[in-house]
Amino acid sequence: MTDAKTSPRAGFYPIIPAGGSGKRLWPLSRANYPKFMRALGAPGSSLLRATLTRLRPLAPEENTYVVTSGVLAPLISRELPELPAGNILVEPAPRESGPAIALAAAVIATIDPEAVMGSFAADHVVRHPERFCAAVETAIKGAEDGNLMTVGITPTRPETGYGYIRRGSAIGDTGMFRVEEFVEKPKYELAKEYVDSGEYLWNASFFVWRVQVFLEELQKREPEFHDNLQIIAAAWWSDEREEVLARVWPNLPKIAIEYLLMEPAARDGMVATVPGDFGWSDVGDYHALGEIQGGDENGNVIIEVDAAREADRYRSASDVRMSDSKNLVVVSDGSRLVTAIGVEDLVIVDTSDVLLVCDRSRAQDVKKMVDELEKAGAAEYI
Amino acid sequence: MTDAKTSPRAGFYPIIPAGGSGKRLWPLSRANYPKFMRALGAPGSSLLRATLTRLRPLAPEENTYVVTSGVLAPLISRELPELPAGNILVEPAPRESGPAIALAAAVIATIDPEAVMGSFAADHVVRHPERFCAAVETAIKGAEDGNLMTVGITPTRPETGYGYIRRGSAIGDTGMFRVEEFVEKPKYELAKEYVDSGEYLWNASFFVWRVQVFLEELQKREPEFHDNLQIIAAAWWSDEREEVLARVWPNLPKIAIEYLLMEPAARDGMVATVPGDFGWSDVGDYHALGEIQGGDENGNVIIEVDAAREADRYRSASDVRMSDSKNLVVVSDGSRLVTAIGVEDLVIVDTSDVLLVCDRSRAQDVKKMVDELEKAGAAEYI
Repeated sequence: MTDAKTSPRAGFYPIIPAGGSGKRLWPLSRANYPKFMRALGAPGSSLLRATLTRLRPLAPEENTYVVTSGVLAPLISRELPELPAGNILVEPAPRESGPAIALAAAVIATIDPEAVMGSFAADHVVRHPERFCAAVETAIKGAEDGNLMTVGITPTRPETGYGYIRRGSAIGDTGMFRVEEFVEKPKYELAKEYVDSGEYLWNASFFVWRVQVFLEELQKREPEFHDNLQIIAAAWWSDEREEVLARVWPNLPKIAIEYLLMEPAARDGMVATVPGDFGWSDVGDYHALGEIQGGDENGNVIIEVDAAREADRYRSASDVRMSDSKNLVVVSDGSRLVTAIGVEDLVIVDTSDVLLVCDRSRAQDVKKMVDELEKAGAAEYI
Repeated sequence: MTDAKTSPRAGFYPIIPAGGSGKRLWPLSRANYPKFMRALGAPGSSLLRATLTRLRPLAPEENTYVVTSGVLAPLISRELPELPAGNILVEPAPRESGPAIALAAAVIATIDPEAVMGSFAADHVVRHPERFCAAVETAIKGAEDGNLMTVGITPTRPETGYGYIRRGSAIGDTGMFRVEEFVEKPKYELAKEYVDSGEYLWNASFFVWRVQVFLEELQKREPEFHDNLQIIAAAWWSDEREEVLARVWPNLPKIAIEYLLMEPAARDGMVATVPGDFGWSDVGDYHALGEIQGGDENGNVIIEVDAAREADRYRSASDVRMSDSKNLVVVSDGSRLVTAIGVEDLVIVDTSDVLLVCDRSRAQDVKKMVDELEKAGAAEYI
C-alpha cells in the first residue's frame, strides 16, 4: 500500500520479530524456511514482505528492524533486499519475544532516544492495511503520551487459539482504552463469554511505545534483565558486539513480552489499547488459511507455492484437478499433478519431500505430527 | 511356487496376454508402465512375474508366451529375462483379446499341432497357486477331450464389475461343468440373483483348449479371420513376418475372445468350465487392492513402490506416518514422507509426478479422471 495517504513519520521505528516456525503449517513451514517466507496472504508476496509493505506508510525502511536468528537472517536479507543489512538484528539463540523485542528497543534507543517503536509479527495477514495504519497511528499518539500501547483485534468468534486483552474504560474520545489485563488462551466456554461481553480483544502481540518508557519500566521491574540489555546495547556499535552478545545473551530468560512486562504494567495502569478491525488473521493453520483465501464455488482453495522455496507465488490451477470434491485446501508446489476424487473437508499439502493429508477439523494437530517427527529424529523433514 | 508337486507337462503352452493398461490403478498404472509391472500381489514380484511363477508347475518357460504391444515388449523382456525372446509375441496394433489369443494359438500350432494352450491374464492375483494349478490341470483334461475350457471363479459377492459364466450340468465326476452362456457385467440386483442361484461363476478370462480344436472352431465360425490368421502363422518363422503382420493384422477386428468364439461355441455345447476357488482377484481398483492386502489394526494398508519404476517392492513403513487415521490405502514411491491426520477411507497414491487422493468408495472413478486427462491432452500423466 505504498500509495496510502498517511505519510511516514521520522521518529517511528517498526520492528518485526521473525523467529517463529509455524509448526501448524508444516510441511509448508519448516524450521529453516518458516511460514513468513510463504505467500499465504496474497499472490506473489511472502507474509514477511507483506508485513514490510504494510508498514511502509508509517516508516521508511531505514527505521524498520527485523529480529531473527542466525539461520534465518540470510533468508530474510534476500527476501527484503531494500532493508539495510544492519537493520537485521540477529539473536545468538532464541529467547522468545521478551528478549527479542527488548533488544530492538535497546538498539533503537542508541539511535534515537526519543523513538516510538512498534512491534508487528512477520507472519500475519491484514486484509485492510489502511485501517491497520490508522489504528497504529492512534497507538503512536498513545505512546507519545507515555502509555505502553497495544493494538488489539476486535474478536469475531470465540477463538480458543489466541490470548485475550481485557479492556477497561475509554481514554476520552481518543479511540483508546485502558487495559485491565492480558489473559491466556481460554477454553471455548470462556472464550464465548469474553466475546459476548464485548470487553475483550484478541491479543495479536502488536505493541507500540516510546523506547525510553519501555526501558524505564523494564529497569523498574526487571533490573537484572535491564542491566544485561544495556551491556549489549553499549557494545552494539563496537567491535565487541559479537563477543558481548555471546557472553551476555544466555543470561536473558526465555520469556514472552506479555509476562516480562505487559501484564505487570497493565496491573499498574500503564497499558492502553486501540481496538482494531482490519481483517486480521495469524494464519494459524491450514483451516484458517482456507478461510482467508475463500474458495471457489465448491469451497475449494488452491494455493501453489514454488518448489524452489525462493519465489512463492500463485499459479494457475492447471495442475490441480478435483472431481466431486468440496471444501479442500490444496497447497501444491506445482511439481506434480494433484488429483482429488470424491473427497471433502481435507487439507492436502504436496511439497517436494513431504505429503500431508489432514482432515480440516484436525488442522491444529499438524503440530503434533511435527513434534512426533522431532522425537523420532526425522530432522530432515522439520 | 517352483516347489509345487505338479510336474511340468511337455504339451501344455500357457500364454499371457499383457496389453491392458489398468486405468483404475492410475497413476500407479500408466500407458507405458501398466499395472502388471507393479508388485500389487506380493512383495518384490510384479503381477506379471507372479503370473509366470504361478504357471511354472504347469509348463516350462520355453512353452510360455506373452502377447503384447511393441511399446511394452522391451519392458516385459527385461522383467522376465528367463523367457526366450521369441516367446514375446508383438501385436502391431491392439485388437483386444480375440486376435491376441488367436495369434498365440496359431503360432503355437506351428510348433506343436497337438498342443494344449491356456490363456491367463498378466495382472491378476491368485492367493493359492496350488489350487489354481489343480483347476488348470482339470481344465487341461477337459481340453484333451476336445472341449473349449474355461476356469471360472466361484463368486464371493454380487460383483458388478465382472462378466459371469452360467454353468449347466456336471460332466460326470470330473469337476467340470457344461457352460450354458457367457453374460455381460450385470447390474447389482441381477448380480445378486446370479450369486444366490449358485449357477454362475465369475469370468476371469482363463481359457484352456487344444489349439487344433480352437482353430477348427474359428475356421467354422469366422473363416475370414481364420484365413488371415493362417497367412500370418505361415509367415511367422520366415523373413516375411513383419511385412505380413503389418499388412494382414489391420484386417482383424477389435473383438474380445468371448464374442469372437466362446459365446457362439457355448451355445453349441462346445464349452465347459472348472469352477475355481483359489483366492483370485483382478485387482480392479485401489479399494480392491486394499481388500487384498488386508491392513493393520486400523485397517490401513501401505504399499510402497519404487520411484524408478523398475523394481517395485514393499519397504518398511518408516516414511508413512498416520495419526488417528483408518482404512487408508496408501501407495507411495518412497521418495517423500507421507503423513495423514484424522482421515478415513481414503486412497492416497503418491508417485513422482502425480498425487491422487480419492475416497475409497469412489475407487472406480479413477478411470474417469484418466479419461478427462486424456481429453485434456495431458499425455505426460497417462
